Amino acid sequence: MHSNFTKMYRSHNCGELNAAHINTEVTLAGWVQKSRDKGFMVWVDLRDRYGITQLIFDENRTDKAVFELAKTLGREFVIQVKGTVIERESKNPNMQTGDIEILVSELSVLNSAITPPFTIEDETDGGEDIRMKYRYLDIRRNPVKNSLLFRHKVAMEVRNFLSNQGFCEVETPYLIKSTPEGARDFIVPSRMSPGQFYALPQSPQTFKQLLMVGGMDKYFQIVKCFRDEDLRADRQPEFTQIDCEMAFVEQEDILNIFESLTRHLLKEIKGIEVDKFPRMTYEHAMKTYGNDKPDIRFGMEFGELNAVAQHKDFGVFNSSELVVGIAVPGGAAYTRKEIDALIDWVKRPQVGVSGMVYCKLEADGSLKSSVDKFYDQEDLKKWAEVTGAKQGDIIFVLSGPAHKTRTQLSALRMEVATRLGLRKPDEFAPLWVVDFPLLEFDEESGRYHAMHHPFTSPKPEDLHLITTDPGNIRANAYDMVLNGNEIGGGSIRIHDKDLQARMFELLGFSAEEAENQFGFLMNAFQYGAPPHGGLAFGLDRLVAILGGQETIRDFIAFPKNNSGRDVMIDAPSVIDNKQLDELAIKLNQ
Amino acid sequence: MHSNFTKMYRSHNCGELNAAHINTEVTLAGWVQKSRDKGFMVWVDLRDRYGITQLIFDENRTDKAVFELAKTLGREFVIQVKGTVIERESKNPNMQTGDIEILVSELSVLNSAITPPFTIEDETDGGEDIRMKYRYLDIRRNPVKNSLLFRHKVAMEVRNFLSNQGFCEVETPYLIKSTPEGARDFIVPSRMSPGQFYALPQSPQTFKQLLMVGGMDKYFQIVKCFRDEDLRADRQPEFTQIDCEMAFVEQEDILNIFESLTRHLLKEIKGIEVDKFPRMTYEHAMKTYGNDKPDIRFGMEFGELNAVAQHKDFGVFNSSELVVGIAVPGGAAYTRKEIDALIDWVKRPQVGVSGMVYCKLEADGSLKSSVDKFYDQEDLKKWAEVTGAKQGDIIFVLSGPAHKTRTQLSALRMEVATRLGLRKPDEFAPLWVVDFPLLEFDEESGRYHAMHHPFTSPKPEDLHLITTDPGNIRANAYDMVLNGNEIGGGSIRIHDKDLQARMFELLGFSAEEAENQFGFLMNAFQYGAPPHGGLAFGLDRLVAILGGQETIRDFIAFPKNNSGRDVMIDAPSVIDNKQLDELAIKLNQ
Repeated sequence: MHSNFTKMYRSHNCGELNAAHINTEVTLAGWVQKSRDKGFMVWVDLRDRYGITQLIFDENRTDKAVFELAKTLGREFVIQVKGTVIERESKNPNMQTGDIEILVSELSVLNSAITPPFTIEDETDGGEDIRMKYRYLDIRRNPVKNSLLFRHKVAMEVRNFLSNQGFCEVETPYLIKSTPEGARDFIVPSRMSPGQFYALPQSPQTFKQLLMVGGMDKYFQIVKCFRDEDLRADRQPEFTQIDCEMAFVEQEDILNIFESLTRHLLKEIKGIEVDKFPRMTYEHAMKTYGNDKPDIRFGMEFGELNAVAQHKDFGVFNSSELVVGIAVPGGAAYTRKEIDALIDWVKRPQVGVSGMVYCKLEADGSLKSSVDKFYDQEDLKKWAEVTGAKQGDIIFVLSGPAHKTRTQLSALRMEVATRLGLRKPDEFAPLWVVDFPLLEFDEESGRYHAMHHPFTSPKPEDLHLITTDPGNIRANAYDMVLNGNEIGGGSIRIHDKDLQARMFELLGFSAEEAENQFGFLMNAFQYGAPPHGGLAFGLDRLVAILGGQETIRDFIAFPKNNSGRDVMIDAPSVIDNKQLDELAIKLNQ
Repeated sequence: MHSNFTKMYRSHNCGELNAAHINTEVTLAGWVQKSRDKGFMVWVDLRDRYGITQLIFDENRTDKAVFELAKTLGREFVIQVKGTVIERESKNPNMQTGDIEILVSELSVLNSAITPPFTIEDETDGGEDIRMKYRYLDIRRNPVKNSLLFRHKVAMEVRNFLSNQGFCEVETPYLIKSTPEGARDFIVPSRMSPGQFYALPQSPQTFKQLLMVGGMDKYFQIVKCFRDEDLRADRQPEFTQIDCEMAFVEQEDILNIFESLTRHLLKEIKGIEVDKFPRMTYEHAMKTYGNDKPDIRFGMEFGELNAVAQHKDFGVFNSSELVVGIAVPGGAAYTRKEIDALIDWVKRPQVGVSGMVYCKLEADGSLKSSVDKFYDQEDLKKWAEVTGAKQGDIIFVLSGPAHKTRTQLSALRMEVATRLGLRKPDEFAPLWVVDFPLLEFDEESGRYHAMHHPFTSPKPEDLHLITTDPGNIRANAYDMVLNGNEIGGGSIRIHDKDLQARMFELLGFSAEEAENQFGFLMNAFQYGAPPHGGLAFGLDRLVAILGGQETIRDFIAFPKNNSGRDVMIDAPSVIDNKQLDELAIKLNQ
């Protein structure tokens, strides 16, 4: 007892012993998951990363001192035991090791533990905040531990797939240059160049383009990126991208490669075979789903009702730019209360609808709407036709300015699908959305912004619109969408110095600003830049979706909270004035 | 001509065509490496990442417009060609594609190029500074490109090896907490918590230990680390580690795993089989090589001469703490001039020796020293015995304070070996140096510093020295050394809260400072911390050594210079006052 088992803390892990090992002498180490003391017999569940093995201490068969020590073990004590694998009397077929238990002969307490602030169980009693503060305990729980192991598996599959396709992982720098364009940078004061700052990369965009200019041909990197933005739920100030770039390619080549990658992941990780991904233009996605990342696991496509619902006596529709509806399967069975709940849901400020019209297709073939005094059965039949509604369905109709109304109906569509259980976590429906607009007009600043980023190539056939109608130029830009989430996006890049300069001009950069911030890239384009393009996947989101989860937090070992704090280590924190002095900065409070 | 070869920029790359492809129609794209215009015939070497393929344009066989266009091609133009693979008249057996050339039928200039600032050749005319400024052109050169591909290969081997051994790669955060201990942190002002700062990690040390507390069992990560130190040559402010940690292990387990990893790399990457690595204590390494990272590809082990060279009439030796020498093979042939050059070399301030004694073992069996008036042949024979000198060798002897003299003799040993060509880049002699001291006394601050880091476990058998003689406590710490470079190091960690607190105390932390900076770790130790340990390899250095190079810079895509600047993108740089205001900081100049 208390012996030092020299140079071998364990002969097996806690997940591998089974009936084949019966009568084997083993050494195990791990955490006490729980213990049951029946007086004459003590059972302990010993846990490690690999599983749980039951230990047994028996008054009659166990050394007295060992037996007494076993009675003192608390939850999460770290122990090492030596013993014999024996057959369990009451087997547990739900456990890997459920056929056996260990009759313990030696016991050593490697470390004690005070009571954890929450239970280390799959379903814990700990709330989000306390779990984050004690993240190292949270990681002991299977849901978190398995999410991290799953993330590793996905990352390895990605790396091996891309490497086998000839991609070279190149590490780009983390201490780069701040560019005010786009999201806000995190910055890093330089001690050696007082008054100057590095920035942490929002993405390795310009570096990967320079690698293409450098002839690297196929680049990838799984890389941390940084954005100092106010955090929405489920956003992190540091996040991980699968970042890729290829030279001598057109859009089609890129879509093919990364469709293969995603198909490979779905097959290897989830065992799911998917066909060729559907492609959808941005315009079609917006018209049909009100969304540029449509969830196509289910239908409920939009039906535009202007032609059939306007020019009657219903003023609300008549004065609307767009009248648009969806048919909810089985919705005719909704009670008045259920319908009211949905109406309340779309009226919340987050969606902002002022009113919603509905029409039930009853079992007897009749149609019953909330606007029966304006529309007769023939009118409503046309609504059903346009929205594809069948008997037993309900049609929900919204109206108003086109873009806003589509966005609202999209929110309703997703909510209804969730309530109906149509967003199945084990079903995967990937697609490409293509032909994004190059620019979007920003009302606030009164100028165009790049929808993707300033390096995105316009479609050559739309280039003539550059002076007359830039808002209608389409880009060689594409997003991969999976189950209603954008998991990746990219574009063919500009590789011509003059076009790039023209683009900066369009985005409101002065020639000086463009030179100052991106001069190195435009210079590089003069020395023989190949046509190139790429994309980036958000690894956190991709892994969460593949793992069937809605939130990314459990797939990140040490996430930050919505205020950007790491509550476990308590960062950020104040620092010494000496450090500030060395960096030639001071607080401005 | 100038046609758009839709959706296929190339059918093959520039490195793969050979005699088997003769008569095949191919499309290639790449850069013009060079062209030779013989008037009636133009040859162009077309280059991409994969190789070079010769193109031929022939007045008689090529369309006139194509032929004329070919004459206008400059170096580094980006072109696409269509043509037929034909047999080359004068084959080049040194080229992958040396048996064939492409008779071009169509030529398209994808991008022109102005003259590069240096030649894109293996041996370039560009100096370090200009190559860094135009790094994207430098990367086109084989030595740099191949170094980056080599790095990728090493990283993939490491990941697959460790993953197959059950290690899980976990991404630890980049925005962490500043700790004034150790090297200087780079810091990042927080906008959401004004007056507070994140720090960039010098290593994921505490996080990997928390992962062990969290039961992750085997962790690794290839990860960027940051140190804001004045840069010595060949140091970078951001560098990459292969970072590893394991639970329920002793030192032996860790040495075994990472010795296997290194053996695997040497075999897979270099085709070299190495035996079990020698192990050497720190004390032995210092005494025998004057160095804790000895290059053991060659001998010249130290011989301590106090017993045989003191107590004669030579006052310099008599008054020295240590008299120590090495035997240089074949050195008896050194001319007076060569010896003087070496004496000058050790007298430089970087080494700082005041004088050096030598003794030649001549072919006739006589010994001839620079101190013949103090030592007779019998005396000198003893020197030869102690240093292992043979006929034809020369013995160099230094004397003075023990540590300083060993360090000086180590510098001489390495220099002599370099001059003799004994440091062969294709020979690999790894070893472990173990039993490092736990602490080193810092004269300047008058207190102990952790030799490895404050989390390193003392050897249990030395723990009793903690109050009486802490300087002589040995640690469970180890370095892997390869060809005179420390490529990795680590330790068994403290996993006991009280011992960790004791350690912080020994290092001069107040209880409050310890709590403030590492309270989260000591707290974690209360909840059942397993025994654990690990190590980290420096990837930049490892890759360079495996690649047979002395400097790491060509194995980093976008390195910084010795002032910490990225001269290509010109970072760090000044930033907007608006950005500073948002971060609640201002310049202090």
